[in-house]
Amino acid sequence: MAVRDKILRPCRNAVLKGGLLAGRVDVVREKMLPYQWKALNDLLPQVEPSHAMENFRIAAGEKAGEFRGMVFQDSDVAKWLEAVAYSLAAHPDPELEAQADEAIDLVARAQQPDGYLNTYYTIVDPDHRWTNLADNHELYCAGHFIEAAVAYYEATGKDKLLQVVCRLVDHIDSMFGPEEGKKRGYPGHEEIELALIRLYRVTRDERHLRLAQFFVEERGKEPHYFQEEARARGLENFHHWGRLGCAYSQAHVPVREQKTAEGHAVRAMYLFSAVADLVQETGDEELFRVCETLWDSTVNRRMYITGGLGSQAHGEGFTIDYDLPSSRAYAETCAAIGLFFWGQRMLQLDSHGKYADVMERALYNGILSGMSLEGDRFFYVNPLEVSPKVAGIRQDHQHVMPTRQGWFACACCPPNLARLLTSLHRYIYSRSSQGLHVHFFADSEVQFVVDQAPVTLRQRTEYPWSGQVRLELALEQEAEFSLYVRLPGWCRKAQVKVNGEPLEDLARHLDKGYLVLARTWRSGDGVELDLAMPVEKVYAHPKVRDAAGRIALQRGPVVYCLEEADNGPDLHALVLAADPDFVVEVDPELQVPAITARGFRLEAVDPGLYAACEPKRVPVTIKAVPYFIWDNRSPGEMSVWIRSAWEA
Amino acid sequence: MAVRDKILRPCRNAVLKGGLLAGRVDVVREKMLPYQWKALNDLLPQVEPSHAMENFRIAAGEKAGEFRGMVFQDSDVAKWLEAVAYSLAAHPDPELEAQADEAIDLVARAQQPDGYLNTYYTIVDPDHRWTNLADNHELYCAGHFIEAAVAYYEATGKDKLLQVVCRLVDHIDSMFGPEEGKKRGYPGHEEIELALIRLYRVTRDERHLRLAQFFVEERGKEPHYFQEEARARGLENFHHWGRLGCAYSQAHVPVREQKTAEGHAVRAMYLFSAVADLVQETGDEELFRVCETLWDSTVNRRMYITGGLGSQAHGEGFTIDYDLPSSRAYAETCAAIGLFFWGQRMLQLDSHGKYADVMERALYNGILSGMSLEGDRFFYVNPLEVSPKVAGIRQDHQHVMPTRQGWFACACCPPNLARLLTSLHRYIYSRSSQGLHVHFFADSEVQFVVDQAPVTLRQRTEYPWSGQVRLELALEQEAEFSLYVRLPGWCRKAQVKVNGEPLEDLARHLDKGYLVLARTWRSGDGVELDLAMPVEKVYAHPKVRDAAGRIALQRGPVVYCLEEADNGPDLHALVLAADPDFVVEVDPELQVPAITARGFRLEAVDPGLYAACEPKRVPVTIKAVPYFIWDNRSPGEMSVWIRSAWEA
Repeated sequence: MAVRDKILRPCRNAVLKGGLLAGRVDVVREKMLPYQWKALNDLLPQVEPSHAMENFRIAAGEKAGEFRGMVFQDSDVAKWLEAVAYSLAAHPDPELEAQADEAIDLVARAQQPDGYLNTYYTIVDPDHRWTNLADNHELYCAGHFIEAAVAYYEATGKDKLLQVVCRLVDHIDSMFGPEEGKKRGYPGHEEIELALIRLYRVTRDERHLRLAQFFVEERGKEPHYFQEEARARGLENFHHWGRLGCAYSQAHVPVREQKTAEGHAVRAMYLFSAVADLVQETGDEELFRVCETLWDSTVNRRMYITGGLGSQAHGEGFTIDYDLPSSRAYAETCAAIGLFFWGQRMLQLDSHGKYADVMERALYNGILSGMSLEGDRFFYVNPLEVSPKVAGIRQDHQHVMPTRQGWFACACCPPNLARLLTSLHRYIYSRSSQGLHVHFFADSEVQFVVDQAPVTLRQRTEYPWSGQVRLELALEQEAEFSLYVRLPGWCRKAQVKVNGEPLEDLARHLDKGYLVLARTWRSGDGVELDLAMPVEKVYAHPKVRDAAGRIALQRGPVVYCLEEADNGPDLHALVLAADPDFVVEVDPELQVPAITARGFRLEAVDPGLYAACEPKRVPVTIKAVPYFIWDNRSPGEMSVWIRSAWEA
Repeated sequence: MAVRDKILRPCRNAVLKGGLLAGRVDVVREKMLPYQWKALNDLLPQVEPSHAMENFRIAAGEKAGEFRGMVFQDSDVAKWLEAVAYSLAAHPDPELEAQADEAIDLVARAQQPDGYLNTYYTIVDPDHRWTNLADNHELYCAGHFIEAAVAYYEATGKDKLLQVVCRLVDHIDSMFGPEEGKKRGYPGHEEIELALIRLYRVTRDERHLRLAQFFVEERGKEPHYFQEEARARGLENFHHWGRLGCAYSQAHVPVREQKTAEGHAVRAMYLFSAVADLVQETGDEELFRVCETLWDSTVNRRMYITGGLGSQAHGEGFTIDYDLPSSRAYAETCAAIGLFFWGQRMLQLDSHGKYADVMERALYNGILSGMSLEGDRFFYVNPLEVSPKVAGIRQDHQHVMPTRQGWFACACCPPNLARLLTSLHRYIYSRSSQGLHVHFFADSEVQFVVDQAPVTLRQRTEYPWSGQVRLELALEQEAEFSLYVRLPGWCRKAQVKVNGEPLEDLARHLDKGYLVLARTWRSGDGVELDLAMPVEKVYAHPKVRDAAGRIALQRGPVVYCLEEADNGPDLHALVLAADPDFVVEVDPELQVPAITARGFRLEAVDPGLYAACEPKRVPVTIKAVPYFIWDNRSPGEMSVWIRSAWEA
């Protein structure tokens, strides 16, 4: 079957009802969005001022002052607006909507008569717009405003921001393209490509799709645009991120020739998401193969067990296959979010559980780790091993913060988290011509239509803490359709009942990780899943240097870690017993299941550094907590990969 | 007993006869010294020009041109001269001596009328001498010329360079000191302190000792000299090596208050050597305690198993206790050499085997690794684990060269190696009032005098490849004295015979690691040692993060490593069996004993990155070669710390 004939459509009307994810979304709505509004308006005395809203006031000519912040500071406002849009769709809130309208009005006033919108160039260097695409993020910021505008329009029906971005896109379209007299440039940081396709899906304006296609296909062609524009600015040599060269921004070769995930991880994820979007719109089979190859490179050779991406701080990106150091990981929160975005697009193109598995890995680990339980502290970098002392002295750990921060000079991650989490309900279910796809487990409800009649599916579960899931159907009339229920890749033993009857020979019902339940459904029908969720010892591929001789503990989709708060310092001196006798119990303070296990602490027999005698093995109980929840108590060491006694 | 009453005197007249060390010294004499002479004279077309000799010609007014090289380029010439001096003492060579004389004549001509000697300031900035001691190495270069001058005078009796440095020291003494009108400065890079004490031992000029004392004691006092001199140059803030501050150059507190080895490792070693020298001259017990504390900090918490020092490239120095990463080690060849220097001084103060053990560790591992077998390629940084691919892409490995280099822009290490190796014969034996101390095992001969009569000791051994050592005495008349023979710390089982008679109850004869054989010796008497030299599995202290779960192989004083040339790639996927059945056999290509052992290679069962199934264990033979000899075949991976199966 051709790719375009099997594309799924996400069910955006789903509602999260309870459980971990709903709880996190509540924190975003109640704490993070107000906190971030204050941050953007410089109302948090204890953190670095953002100046983002102030830049818009200055660009609108309503205040005097200088531009401050990163060259892409505008995008923090756009991402906040997008997050608000999703939140309003699920939880109307007039006060929040008024704040968003106020922000949108200001953004509109900062737009220039010709449609241009970017406070940095408007304030600082209006004569040199579009002269440094490689570094200066004008198209990136435009992309985020487009995404915000589409989301806000879909949530509220208000099109003021949509009109702003359509005028902006008209302006951009007049500047860039293959036509004579236009620049053949493309963004240093991808984002506008996927945004233009979202816009196209609302406007159906073919120019929007064509511009996205142009940006994707032009990238990496010779002569190299970034070199040409640098030369035009009078630079002899174009030095793009040292050792990394043009691969830093995935511009080393045209995307159709790319075989490995290279360079800045967030940029790569946004580009690859756009490529998958293009496949959805065009059915381009070759581009789909490119996506598959790049997906394989990313998740099978260059991804942390947490779904984190980016193996070094230099260039914030990929290095080489299997180079995944724990303590020097970059694993930017935004990169795991980008992987989630890309995974969703792949999943819509090809309903294969492998995409959902990676999305889950990212979500429950490297994404949720980006925020504190309270929602007011954030990780930008998400290492898999932290020693505060080492991070404090070593230059090669300078990017590692051993505890979450209130805000950042480069504050891309917190609003990215906000926009992902407020939109989480949109990722759980999809429709296809055959029926409904249940990609993820979360206490939730979704309505869809079969034969013009509404069907309600209520999913009840305490996932990810329990593997018990109950799907309950309510129909006005019986209907024939398929339920596609994902059996997660982490699950090695599942029991399924349909209307109380055990489903025998599950494998026969499985298609690419999805259980296909095709039948005539009646109201009151139900499906029960019992996904066995023992604690698993997970091994990395032996080529992963930093995980050699170690294991990670995982339960369901949740990767665990050791914290100093539970285990004392020198976590690397702990060794899991060969027969660890795992016990899972809810931690009274963190209120999540913690794992305890038998193990040893290695203690020196000899006070010297090197001795021919093996260290003493002192029996201890090792305690592990979910990785994403680390650093919510006293700061200290953390480690995901644990030494393990060699099994006999 | 007071420290000063038990000081040993090195026997400088010893002669290396054969074996590994003699062979290495031959290579230095025959290959390295001529090679380095060419390097200093820019006669090696394939390597970066040194310009060191050319700088002297320009400073002497004999050539036009600009200064080129590091601000301390002069010191490369000085170290070469010092190396030549030791070589001439052991192996007269008129041609080499003529080259050295020529170099010395040139240096003398470059000396300024007031005694000043430094080509950088003379050529580039003559008006600003002595204004940036923190960074600019004038006193450091002076120190190296002083050492060269003393060595050349001792070797040849020629005092031209000695006169040059005495005038230079007169000039320095007129500039620095506690007296009114003098600068209270001290070098950013220590070296002149120990050099002045060497000079004092030749000149007996108290000013030379006092100046050394001043430099040592003034360091770290408040107000901070480096800050004051920076302010005098118009700098508001003195930023000395980022996070490291004044500890970078051991100037954070006065040396008497220092308790841990901090900052740039070579600088620290040279300072601590000077402190030990001061104790030798002054008998200062408090300073001796300072040395003992700093020694303990260095070798028991901050030293690689190779004797390498310096855990990070930033600041080329120490970080915190037990932070000893393998692949990102700095472990500069010069730092291991500095540790050897300091160890020798401690050993003369306190004939304790622990100092000789560390010297051996450094010599046979982190020092000898600095040069290729051929003597024309050098390591500056000596990592304990190398993956050429990782080193090639990761910014945090930028300092790691996966193969030895022909020369360096900063070429401190090769001539430092040369001067150490040509002087090795001076380190083997010491005299005390009680007799002769045999610190090291090497095929060699030494003569000394007891009761006005000469005694010759001939040491026959193939050490470090064999633990069999025979000491043969030749005397003109019987004499009563003690032989102090070191039993190395690595040795767990030794048999000793005196004149063929087994020595029972060795422990009773042991004093701080030395076997004390006090008797009346007659010509023909002999001592036989049989030091059991099995392959040992060595464990690091469990606090050493990077060695956790791993072992190193050591045989005698020699640390072994795995190379890709013998074991294929992905060395970290190799696991030593719990019962490895070590076999030691001479490698036909490298001509040194190699170790083979039973082990496993872990191979992935699942092609993915993370899986709940343990990797397959494929039985393999693991081969290890001496660490110092790595990278003498095809470039590839190398690793010292090997994963090992958990012993039952």
